[in-house]
Amino acid sequence: MRPSKRNPDEKRQVSLERNVSKHAEGSCIIKCGDTHVLCTASLEERIPPWLRGQGRGWVTAEYGMLPRATGDRMRREAQAGKQSGRTQEIQRLIGRSLRAVVDLEALGERQITVDCDVIQADGGTRTASITGAWIALRDCIEWMRARGMIAADAVVLKDQLAAISCGIYQGTPVLDLDYLEDSDAETDANFVMTGKGGIVEVQGTAEGEPFSHDELMQMLELAKKGIGELVELQEANKD
Amino acid sequence: MRPSKRNPDEKRQVSLERNVSKHAEGSCIIKCGDTHVLCTASLEERIPPWLRGQGRGWVTAEYGMLPRATGDRMRREAQAGKQSGRTQEIQRLIGRSLRAVVDLEALGERQITVDCDVIQADGGTRTASITGAWIALRDCIEWMRARGMIAADAVVLKDQLAAISCGIYQGTPVLDLDYLEDSDAETDANFVMTGKGGIVEVQGTAEGEPFSHDELMQMLELAKKGIGELVELQEANKD
Amino acid sequence: MRPSKRNPDEKRQVSLERNVSKHAEGSCIIKCGDTHVLCTASLEERIPPWLRGQGRGWVTAEYGMLPRATGDRMRREAQAGKQSGRTQEIQRLIGRSLRAVVDLEALGERQITVDCDVIQADGGTRTASITGAWIALRDCIEWMRARGMIAADAVVLKDQLAAISCGIYQGTPVLDLDYLEDSDAETDANFVMTGKGGIVEVQGTAEGEPFSHDELMQMLELAKKGIGELVELQEANKD
Amino acid sequence: MRPSKRNPDEKRQVSLERNVSKHAEGSCIIKCGDTHVLCTASLEERIPPWLRGQGRGWVTAEYGMLPRATGDRMRREAQAGKQSGRTQEIQRLIGRSLRAVVDLEALGERQITVDCDVIQADGGTRTASITGAWIALRDCIEWMRARGMIAADAVVLKDQLAAISCGIYQGTPVLDLDYLEDSDAETDANFVMTGKGGIVEVQGTAEGEPFSHDELMQMLELAKKGIGELVELQEANKD
Amino acid sequence: MRPSKRNPDEKRQVSLERNVSKHAEGSCIIKCGDTHVLCTASLEERIPPWLRGQGRGWVTAEYGMLPRATGDRMRREAQAGKQSGRTQEIQRLIGRSLRAVVDLEALGERQITVDCDVIQADGGTRTASITGAWIALRDCIEWMRARGMIAADAVVLKDQLAAISCGIYQGTPVLDLDYLEDSDAETDANFVMTGKGGIVEVQGTAEGEPFSHDELMQMLELAKKGIGELVELQEANKD
Amino acid sequence: MRPSKRNPDEKRQVSLERNVSKHAEGSCIIKCGDTHVLCTASLEERIPPWLRGQGRGWVTAEYGMLPRATGDRMRREAQAGKQSGRTQEIQRLIGRSLRAVVDLEALGERQITVDCDVIQADGGTRTASITGAWIALRDCIEWMRARGMIAADAVVLKDQLAAISCGIYQGTPVLDLDYLEDSDAETDANFVMTGKGGIVEVQGTAEGEPFSHDELMQMLELAKKGIGELVELQEANKD
Repeated sequence: MRPSKRNPDEKRQVSLERNVSKHAEGSCIIKCGDTHVLCTASLEERIPPWLRGQGRGWVTAEYGMLPRATGDRMRREAQAGKQSGRTQEIQRLIGRSLRAVVDLEALGERQITVDCDVIQADGGTRTASITGAWIALRDCIEWMRARGMIAADAVVLKDQLAAISCGIYQGTPVLDLDYLEDSDAETDANFVMTGKGGIVEVQGTAEGEPFSHDELMQMLELAKKGIGELVELQEANKD
Repeated sequence: MRPSKRNPDEKRQVSLERNVSKHAEGSCIIKCGDTHVLCTASLEERIPPWLRGQGRGWVTAEYGMLPRATGDRMRREAQAGKQSGRTQEIQRLIGRSLRAVVDLEALGERQITVDCDVIQADGGTRTASITGAWIALRDCIEWMRARGMIAADAVVLKDQLAAISCGIYQGTPVLDLDYLEDSDAETDANFVMTGKGGIVEVQGTAEGEPFSHDELMQMLELAKKGIGELVELQEANKD
Repeated sequence: MRPSKRNPDEKRQVSLERNVSKHAEGSCIIKCGDTHVLCTASLEERIPPWLRGQGRGWVTAEYGMLPRATGDRMRREAQAGKQSGRTQEIQRLIGRSLRAVVDLEALGERQITVDCDVIQADGGTRTASITGAWIALRDCIEWMRARGMIAADAVVLKDQLAAISCGIYQGTPVLDLDYLEDSDAETDANFVMTGKGGIVEVQGTAEGEPFSHDELMQMLELAKKGIGELVELQEANKD
Repeated sequence: MRPSKRNPDEKRQVSLERNVSKHAEGSCIIKCGDTHVLCTASLEERIPPWLRGQGRGWVTAEYGMLPRATGDRMRREAQAGKQSGRTQEIQRLIGRSLRAVVDLEALGERQITVDCDVIQADGGTRTASITGAWIALRDCIEWMRARGMIAADAVVLKDQLAAISCGIYQGTPVLDLDYLEDSDAETDANFVMTGKGGIVEVQGTAEGEPFSHDELMQMLELAKKGIGELVELQEANKD
Repeated sequence: MRPSKRNPDEKRQVSLERNVSKHAEGSCIIKCGDTHVLCTASLEERIPPWLRGQGRGWVTAEYGMLPRATGDRMRREAQAGKQSGRTQEIQRLIGRSLRAVVDLEALGERQITVDCDVIQADGGTRTASITGAWIALRDCIEWMRARGMIAADAVVLKDQLAAISCGIYQGTPVLDLDYLEDSDAETDANFVMTGKGGIVEVQGTAEGEPFSHDELMQMLELAKKGIGELVELQEANKD
Repeated sequence: MRPSKRNPDEKRQVSLERNVSKHAEGSCIIKCGDTHVLCTASLEERIPPWLRGQGRGWVTAEYGMLPRATGDRMRREAQAGKQSGRTQEIQRLIGRSLRAVVDLEALGERQITVDCDVIQADGGTRTASITGAWIALRDCIEWMRARGMIAADAVVLKDQLAAISCGIYQGTPVLDLDYLEDSDAETDANFVMTGKGGIVEVQGTAEGEPFSHDELMQMLELAKKGIGELVELQEANKD
């Protein structure tokens, strides 16, 4: 029995609210249960120096948590003077995952930065960030298309992208761990997949006992189901 | 005529939403027009080393802006590796102002940190932060009182506290500048006052021409009116 | 009765020694009682990147204290690896105040950096810095004029600039607090004004009880008197 | 056909040289083809503050590359003033993986830090580091046992641990990518497993096209084979 | 012929002004020609953690240059966020040299920090700093003795200490290089010696051609002469 | 009697292994007893900004120690966030010494960076680094010559360069201190000389009692002998 009373293959309630920022070219708040992430996509007409003159653009991501997004207040990274290893790992993951579904040449020599800021945390912030970041990115690209910066028929986004976590909780593979479940799970695995079901990233970590081939497969099946539902939600939330 | 069409003594629409955080002991979102600030108060049972053993507590504040709170995306301070001079100046102001209305001995040997994070910016973020921070702080103190950490009749908060900006716009003193007005104003002044009308902080800066004694007085009068309205709103938002 | 035995409207003895640096284009040591600040103006034929090509120059300031300028030795900021919030706040104030009296277009595409380094501190270092910085800046501009970098009749400096602090000490508004008085004052206010009496900056902070409209006015009157005397001293110290 | 001419399931030549450091309690140089990593285990009689008084020890890892370990010289991280996100990600992975096979209570209140320094790089530095780090850690624990710091029959290391990478190269799953192959592979996956075949960590990333469930399974099979060989080599290299 | 017109064995005019700081326990300004250094000694009743409980004290030094001490303005180290390699090298040299003449046990468990801040630079700032630092240190120790912190007859300072530079200028060994001479010299050597003539530190560097055994000897003889004169000046400047 | 049982004028066994790096243009491992340093020379077709357009190249050096190169593990500088003063002092010494024997104009507008990384330390790491760095630099220059980047007869390296330490151990001048001897020596001196016997750098420090003119001379004689032997070894190790 999960602390959340959810069935093993039942994810949390997820909602998407779009256009939440007056300034950003694309934005949303994604709520996965009590995990709330604000995602904004910012378009800039400049690219990193190492990309110049190649006719391609860039998509990158940054991640942050507000100090009291968590149960205990965490030190503000701006004050600590650096981003933690965990923060860097997560923002590298988000950026890499987004780039897997973007045609950087179709984007042109521009950069889109997607900021994922966790307003409230209850487990699964990196996967919620990815699912929401894709919405912000898509809306940014449509914003560009509406202004003629991208041709009407150009396929900049090759596919949808969403992510979810799985875990082994008291011996049972379960979908979408919240904080309490995550603290107790033997294994924690994050999956990033495309709308067509291709795997973009899989990261599984044994927190306690090593896990088996079979358990990895079962978690992968749960993830497919959960990501399928997220992809439908994304599809339902467009103009 | 102000770009915002408001009368010289008319402040923006202000709303307060309380208890917006699952984790924080006190919290609110304050919206002053398009300036939105999330304020959370975090209680910790420890105080700065230099205060230990004196029987007094501490109240401090931190301030941040999400990278795309502004029209152009700003660099994330956690990535830059330090807080800007502006950020430090603002958070020092917020903390100092809050302490002016707190009886630190009545608080006991504890620290309350109020985080003010600007979700969206349109001018006046520091004054909105102060007005909202006071709400989060008050709710945190009531949370403590409800748990017997503070005596039922202890006066920890000596008074209310709110803040607003004024400016000289095209020769006319006006109340509560938004971003567009602020960019064009000759003078920008921030006032922090108590519920009883005492001045806690005044900061006036000539952006263009120096201002006169009379202009300072006129801005002070406008500020009194605006802060009076904010104090009423605070009073209307309590349990 | 003030610890310094001075009358409420009596400022400390102030002296200005000019041309104290072999290298700087303008320099002085200002002594306000036991507060001694070395001010040097450095001319550079380059401007910040964001100003290039606009036909305007820039004036900026930096502030520092020698580690043993104070009663207890303070940690050297170069070793701490960053400037404190207080330091940044002060140098931003000095730079902003100086720019209020400079015609940046008349300066041409050049930058003048005024360094204010506190050799010995006894309260009022920021206001002494501003009064001395103006002297260093003026002498730098005259140095440029003598070399034909600025036309003989060009008005680069629009006015004089000086600053002084006031406070409420045991209920009485007093002028020019020294360290001992400042530690005990209920309110501390800094005023920056021009030679013609325009207000460039006012910063008043209640350290204890909030202050009233009337008290602010009384401090402003004291400041006018003190700054008037400083402006005369500046005028008396020129070639 | 792989650039390295190896069969898809053929890993590079691997050698282990132990006791290469005069000072460290355990050490080895692991060579996987042209990737050479020096691993040293350092025992310290102190543990991180947050672990004190719990009767448990800690195992952690740090990772670095010499500036010219790579084809082009990279900037020295000590000079850049921080470890890159990649470095932090790798050292977190190594430490987490090692802890999965250590009984921290059996270790006692001590910390072992395993440093993995890449002397020469040709792909697969993180997996080589893990395989070598386990040797250094084992030898450190035997060093402690020989000195009576650990009981003769205490099982501190619960299992062996080794790691290897796989990839999809031109559509074919292959084992143990070198740098050239890695630059061209569509997918890169790292596997960390125990001697008994349990999975401790799996990290798969689509560099180009997303990969499928089947491809993940095929890579997992290759990894099992490769790690089995590494575990045998570890077993053959002991006192 | 030297640019300074001085004879090869002629040092610059040197003056010492003591008790220049209201706060420091010992202080002086040393002027060697146009090189002016403010030296302050600060006593603290605490020692570095690694020295605690050993019944010994510590003497250390810090060095800094005001930004416009030099011909071109240099970046403020506090703003750069770190001390340069040169600064660290110099302050390590000053501290090490001072400790060579201090009986740390006689000092008791206290730390004296000598700050050497270059107000104006014209070559030889590190050697002037050492000569002046010894004066500040001696006066600090006498301040302690006058307050009974050190026994009336305790020998805390074992000897005097002074320093001077030499160089090979156009083939001729010369004493006490100023900035112009230093820029052109083939070799630059700094000598630190005690009052009795013992060598505490010698640092010779070939800027152009390597130098010979004989040249080193000749520079050593010049240094002895110069340091002898400095030691006499120190002796003449005491209470 | 020295702890190492060596005669006063007997240096440690020294070996040079060249071409140890697959990537670097020149490389060696130098072993002086138990002190082992990896030296790599990296050629880059770019020079520091302040050198551009002058037709000259640059040679610089960086120094590092692996964390467990020493008896107790030292904190990794990349993690500490900065290079220690000692590290900076050493790498400045190595670079300066190398440049003393390089004709920077003959090198052309290119930079060679020599990295000296201490794999294992037992005293004398800076002098071993210099002796090894010269080998890596020479081999890099021959690599360039073989590729026609330097004319067949161009003299880029004007002379050989090697370094060794001396000390006063229990009153006796001795050559080439190891760590144990160094910890106990009264004086520690490092000498850098050319193949022809010119002095490039001498750094002598009294750790205990000051040393005399005679002792400096005796150490210089020992250094000449030791460096002569190192220069022969370098000569014996070439293609």
